[in-house]
Amino acid sequence: MEKRILFINPIASSSYDDEIREYLKAGKCQDTIIKVVSLERGPLHLDYHYYETLVLTDILHLVKQAEEEGYDGAIIGCFLDSALEAAREITHRLVVAAPAESCMLIAASLGHSFSIIVTKDKALTRIRDNVVKYGFKDRLALFKSVALGVRDLQEDRTEAATRIKELAKEAVERDLAEVIILGCTIQFGFYKELQQDVGVPVLDAILATLKYAELMIELKKRFNWGQSKAYSYESPPRDEIIDWKLEEQYGVKGIWS
Amino acid sequence: MEKRILFINPIASSSYDDEIREYLKAGKCQDTIIKVVSLERGPLHLDYHYYETLVLTDILHLVKQAEEEGYDGAIIGCFLDSALEAAREITHRLVVAAPAESCMLIAASLGHSFSIIVTKDKALTRIRDNVVKYGFKDRLALFKSVALGVRDLQEDRTEAATRIKELAKEAVERDLAEVIILGCTIQFGFYKELQQDVGVPVLDAILATLKYAELMIELKKRFNWGQSKAYSYESPPRDEIIDWKLEEQYGVKGIWS
Amino acid sequence: MEKRILFINPIASSSYDDEIREYLKAGKCQDTIIKVVSLERGPLHLDYHYYETLVLTDILHLVKQAEEEGYDGAIIGCFLDSALEAAREITHRLVVAAPAESCMLIAASLGHSFSIIVTKDKALTRIRDNVVKYGFKDRLALFKSVALGVRDLQEDRTEAATRIKELAKEAVERDLAEVIILGCTIQFGFYKELQQDVGVPVLDAILATLKYAELMIELKKRFNWGQSKAYSYESPPRDEIIDWKLEEQYGVKGIWS
Amino acid sequence: MEKRILFINPIASSSYDDEIREYLKAGKCQDTIIKVVSLERGPLHLDYHYYETLVLTDILHLVKQAEEEGYDGAIIGCFLDSALEAAREITHRLVVAAPAESCMLIAASLGHSFSIIVTKDKALTRIRDNVVKYGFKDRLALFKSVALGVRDLQEDRTEAATRIKELAKEAVERDLAEVIILGCTIQFGFYKELQQDVGVPVLDAILATLKYAELMIELKKRFNWGQSKAYSYESPPRDEIIDWKLEEQYGVKGIWS
Amino acid sequence: MEKRILFINPIASSSYDDEIREYLKAGKCQDTIIKVVSLERGPLHLDYHYYETLVLTDILHLVKQAEEEGYDGAIIGCFLDSALEAAREITHRLVVAAPAESCMLIAASLGHSFSIIVTKDKALTRIRDNVVKYGFKDRLALFKSVALGVRDLQEDRTEAATRIKELAKEAVERDLAEVIILGCTIQFGFYKELQQDVGVPVLDAILATLKYAELMIELKKRFNWGQSKAYSYESPPRDEIIDWKLEEQYGVKGIWS
Amino acid sequence: MEKRILFINPIASSSYDDEIREYLKAGKCQDTIIKVVSLERGPLHLDYHYYETLVLTDILHLVKQAEEEGYDGAIIGCFLDSALEAAREITHRLVVAAPAESCMLIAASLGHSFSIIVTKDKALTRIRDNVVKYGFKDRLALFKSVALGVRDLQEDRTEAATRIKELAKEAVERDLAEVIILGCTIQFGFYKELQQDVGVPVLDAILATLKYAELMIELKKRFNWGQSKAYSYESPPRDEIIDWKLEEQYGVKGIWS
Repeated sequence: MEKRILFINPIASSSYDDEIREYLKAGKCQDTIIKVVSLERGPLHLDYHYYETLVLTDILHLVKQAEEEGYDGAIIGCFLDSALEAAREITHRLVVAAPAESCMLIAASLGHSFSIIVTKDKALTRIRDNVVKYGFKDRLALFKSVALGVRDLQEDRTEAATRIKELAKEAVERDLAEVIILGCTIQFGFYKELQQDVGVPVLDAILATLKYAELMIELKKRFNWGQSKAYSYESPPRDEIIDWKLEEQYGVKGIWS
Repeated sequence: MEKRILFINPIASSSYDDEIREYLKAGKCQDTIIKVVSLERGPLHLDYHYYETLVLTDILHLVKQAEEEGYDGAIIGCFLDSALEAAREITHRLVVAAPAESCMLIAASLGHSFSIIVTKDKALTRIRDNVVKYGFKDRLALFKSVALGVRDLQEDRTEAATRIKELAKEAVERDLAEVIILGCTIQFGFYKELQQDVGVPVLDAILATLKYAELMIELKKRFNWGQSKAYSYESPPRDEIIDWKLEEQYGVKGIWS
Repeated sequence: MEKRILFINPIASSSYDDEIREYLKAGKCQDTIIKVVSLERGPLHLDYHYYETLVLTDILHLVKQAEEEGYDGAIIGCFLDSALEAAREITHRLVVAAPAESCMLIAASLGHSFSIIVTKDKALTRIRDNVVKYGFKDRLALFKSVALGVRDLQEDRTEAATRIKELAKEAVERDLAEVIILGCTIQFGFYKELQQDVGVPVLDAILATLKYAELMIELKKRFNWGQSKAYSYESPPRDEIIDWKLEEQYGVKGIWS
Repeated sequence: MEKRILFINPIASSSYDDEIREYLKAGKCQDTIIKVVSLERGPLHLDYHYYETLVLTDILHLVKQAEEEGYDGAIIGCFLDSALEAAREITHRLVVAAPAESCMLIAASLGHSFSIIVTKDKALTRIRDNVVKYGFKDRLALFKSVALGVRDLQEDRTEAATRIKELAKEAVERDLAEVIILGCTIQFGFYKELQQDVGVPVLDAILATLKYAELMIELKKRFNWGQSKAYSYESPPRDEIIDWKLEEQYGVKGIWS
Repeated sequence: MEKRILFINPIASSSYDDEIREYLKAGKCQDTIIKVVSLERGPLHLDYHYYETLVLTDILHLVKQAEEEGYDGAIIGCFLDSALEAAREITHRLVVAAPAESCMLIAASLGHSFSIIVTKDKALTRIRDNVVKYGFKDRLALFKSVALGVRDLQEDRTEAATRIKELAKEAVERDLAEVIILGCTIQFGFYKELQQDVGVPVLDAILATLKYAELMIELKKRFNWGQSKAYSYESPPRDEIIDWKLEEQYGVKGIWS
Repeated sequence: MEKRILFINPIASSSYDDEIREYLKAGKCQDTIIKVVSLERGPLHLDYHYYETLVLTDILHLVKQAEEEGYDGAIIGCFLDSALEAAREITHRLVVAAPAESCMLIAASLGHSFSIIVTKDKALTRIRDNVVKYGFKDRLALFKSVALGVRDLQEDRTEAATRIKELAKEAVERDLAEVIILGCTIQFGFYKELQQDVGVPVLDAILATLKYAELMIELKKRFNWGQSKAYSYESPPRDEIIDWKLEEQYGVKGIWS
């Protein structure tokens, strides 16, 4: 069953697109086809509420356009799961996945508790809100922060790896975490070695989301189990969108036609 | 103590600006100065996640600009409290208030439980998430929905008033609500008569937020109790914003300088 | 990627084995191979704690044996998720899935709330305990019980279908459920028509678990993300099992060797 | 708008009355008029359940009498919020505020989490019960106790200040508290220097309550939003009180007439 | 093992003392000795916060005096568990029991959920606070209120019995309550017939507390498991009480000597 | 009132039976008659889910047989409360008690918080699930693990005692536990000295359950307050059990006749 997926790296830089594409390729199912895009404008990381807010509208329009172009699924490639609910609201046929939700849903069946390793202390509150919302508050074996911005993390990967390993060990030994989640999509590539070192499953945010997206597409295509259109994800009426000229106002002519 | 407040009606229509201005005027403290603005683009109501997402960036830039222009406070005039956290993150001197938070904080000291009357069933999940986030899950005496869109509500105010009254009575008598919150800023003007009819305090989303904003400004000016700049509301570094040319990209040249 | 799965129908009757096998066949991935088994002794349904307790040991030994025989996954085919944790504890290479967990993890990404339709009121407490344990207490839009024993449900499928449809509609319209879960594996086959009638995704306990099991096997084989062996699912030491002659005592000679 | 407030220091000593009066004066609005009283009998601190119980009736009668004398608001000056609910039950026109509630409601809009610095470990359970009751359990970034009785705290203010500062720093740096609440009314005067030292808002229990009381009076006078008289705060019938001669029995002749 | 118990009916009327005494006698263990007392002043029921507050101090002094006189246990005979924590704080050798706590602890081992039948809607919030505090929030199968004041309940026992029976049936059939708790000590005598009618255990507040008190005394005498004197129930220092002349001030000369 | 109790030590070794019998004898009421039994097959400890599962059916049949033989109560002698719910489901006249539930219900009235000292980290999750289920999550002052298997604990009792004492002290001093629960039935005999050392009540799992069982029998015999037969503990129909030949299949001929 063919599965066409758009992976959105929601920052204004395409530097990581190639690397991510190769990474996804190695993990995908045979009949999955993936395109990786980043944004045309915006910040280079989403460590602040403000930066995240700036990219939300552009993410949504990319998702909607992907649906128009026949994609089966979209991945919002940031551990904040930015715009996830709105993206599910505006789509019908296409399904949407995001890292924090995917990782936690998978972790839930691998162990009783998990620890999330995030970049900076500031991210804790934001991500914790999602842990609570997704229902996993009682499964969280404390957070750990590497105290490195997303960009530092990219620039000195050896230092990052060392710190992450220390935190992961501490999470398992002291906080009794049974699963580790790497809470930033830019920590990709670390999981394999790490999981040998600490002896418990270490979830990679990109690969976990890829697999969850493939499952969701499978469920949608086989059984028509896609996003419910009752209440939370009920779509806005196309007429209103056209009447109000939202396409013109936000420079996305044609995506709602 | 002078208090300069910007009230943002976050929709692309100025039709209600005058009415809201007069309404605020009648409720404000003597030395409070209020300006009401609406948006230059966007939807006419925020009943969908998508519509709400579209206006977030513009709300933030209005708030930031207000701080630059010397305002003491900003009110985000929608019961979804859209962009509230990000607005508090990007400001230092100015304080930000929003209706759901203000109403619940006030309701908390007037009774043991409250009921929120919202426009449509779809809004319930969205607003309930905020009730939980603000800590008032156990105080919520069930939701009520008038099953009217924001616009219907404006157009047939008599019908709306009748339905709201019925729901409010039911909330008090059957669900044992001790306080009623009108969960939409467009329900303004209804509270006075309603509260005589049902015999418990009925909070008006616009007036409650005005008063909470005045309190917050007073606290900030007298005791320097403004938004904490540790973690959640730590501001993004100005340098990055300039470097990345975010002002140019989003058409708001000058607000971060 | 080949996926060998053992589906255990944990009752002492093979009457449904063929039907379930065909049903699974129609829903499985191409390279998935499934065997369906039932028990050699025990009750004919698990509506009582006592009946459930009687079958636990036999389920575990079937799972362990399946691992020995090279299966990649096991499905415990009862919505009580009987023996799920113990089954994950005693296996290393094979992964274990069960209906309630699988359905809720899937429902979590399709809507904000779900309703579970169970057989009898007595089952509510038992299943609710699992809802809470899995973290979905706040997503549960009330339970519904068809007030039919598992066996009645099998015998008069038309009556059952009518009752389930009524309850599902009520769940969506009155309780604002966004997804329906059919909380009994014997309700298989109902979902397709039902989901057209009620207009929201209706999860079938057998198919949902099949797909979740396939995902888990994929994750295990590709990334070695299997059940964590730290704490909760740490396996008992083989030496002890042999020393204490547990194999002989419970008539399962050879499965731990 | 004139606001007449009675501040009750609920201990049998007037030693702090003057100091508190001056402190309140410096923080109040221009048209606020404040009287400070303490009790005629009772203990000198409320560190034990027993001591607190002894003063409850006298607090209530002072509050009721204040209402009779035309006061607009009453402040119960102890961080245990002693008799708060009963005080709201017996009053109609006058509104009642208390420190723990006021501080938490204000803290809620200044940051995502707060830490309360209390006098002794024994107080933790008692105050934590209130944190839970007010809905802020998930916002509490651990408690800190200075391990000093209320009286020690008064006698060696330098030592107290040093300990409080250490705890506040630890709360911010290690527990990620975004706001500090000084959980004892006798810690007044410390907040200003402290908040410069630790860099986050430090709420003073007396000033926060004063401001919250002023807000409540404003809301009552302008919009008639006072304590709800439905259920929790429904007043006892005057007839019963007179019939049973409660005024005579408790030596408060005339306050219910 | 002899068990001397003081039962305090915390209202200013001895009308029920005899009846309660006979009732307790019929339910007590052979070597249990019981004295029933009521208060010398105060209200005739505790349906309001105010009335409850008035009696707290007198309850405490009766309990303390009972300890002085060699009693082994005290029962605070009101379903609000008034002054329970303070009573445990001031006693060392004597143990204290109260109805709501005793009933819930017993109900917890008899069924998965219980329903409490209270006198008036106003009591719901107050009692619900205790349900939450004692940890049984998730076991509460909704409240029921007979909408009768404590006194009406006494005066027309036939009408009361009819209403209670209806509510109890509804609780079992519709709310799936597995145990019924009669949430008022004045409902004594109803349980026996009721439990035959509804077919589930119906707990009588007086008898349940008597039995729990006997258990607590047994535990204290045999194993020295009495109220913990660490933190919450740490007793106030006798010296302070004497120094401050609390005995004289509250007219209880001699009870702390 | 005579109370006949069967104490089941659910492991396949009678080595501890005599010692436990003597221990129970010293703690029981005069008219209580106790028999201690262990299992005929199975593991020697229940530290793994697998081991626990193996013994469940045999526990149930012992309990059922005890009812047939006229026992009034059964105690399941393992801190996991294994098979407790099923045992209550299959019995009518006999009541069932188990250590974790009994200890927590007693601890609840002795202090505000408790700490449980368990054998190994692995047990934490399992026992914590019960703490949550019984409603005491907010009263748990952290767990402590002595990091000794049940068997090590038996073999080197001096070492065990030393470690337990250290942990108990830490629990009281650092985690503010007000009561200590020894979370393993094999820790019997330790409580007396320990409670002198740490100064708070230390609950012994065997004695606490004995006393709770005596209370339950008293309640059953005097007031007919036994396990509710509505919903959760509704018994399976005898006819089905006979029809399905469950007695023959599980080698317990005659216990349901």
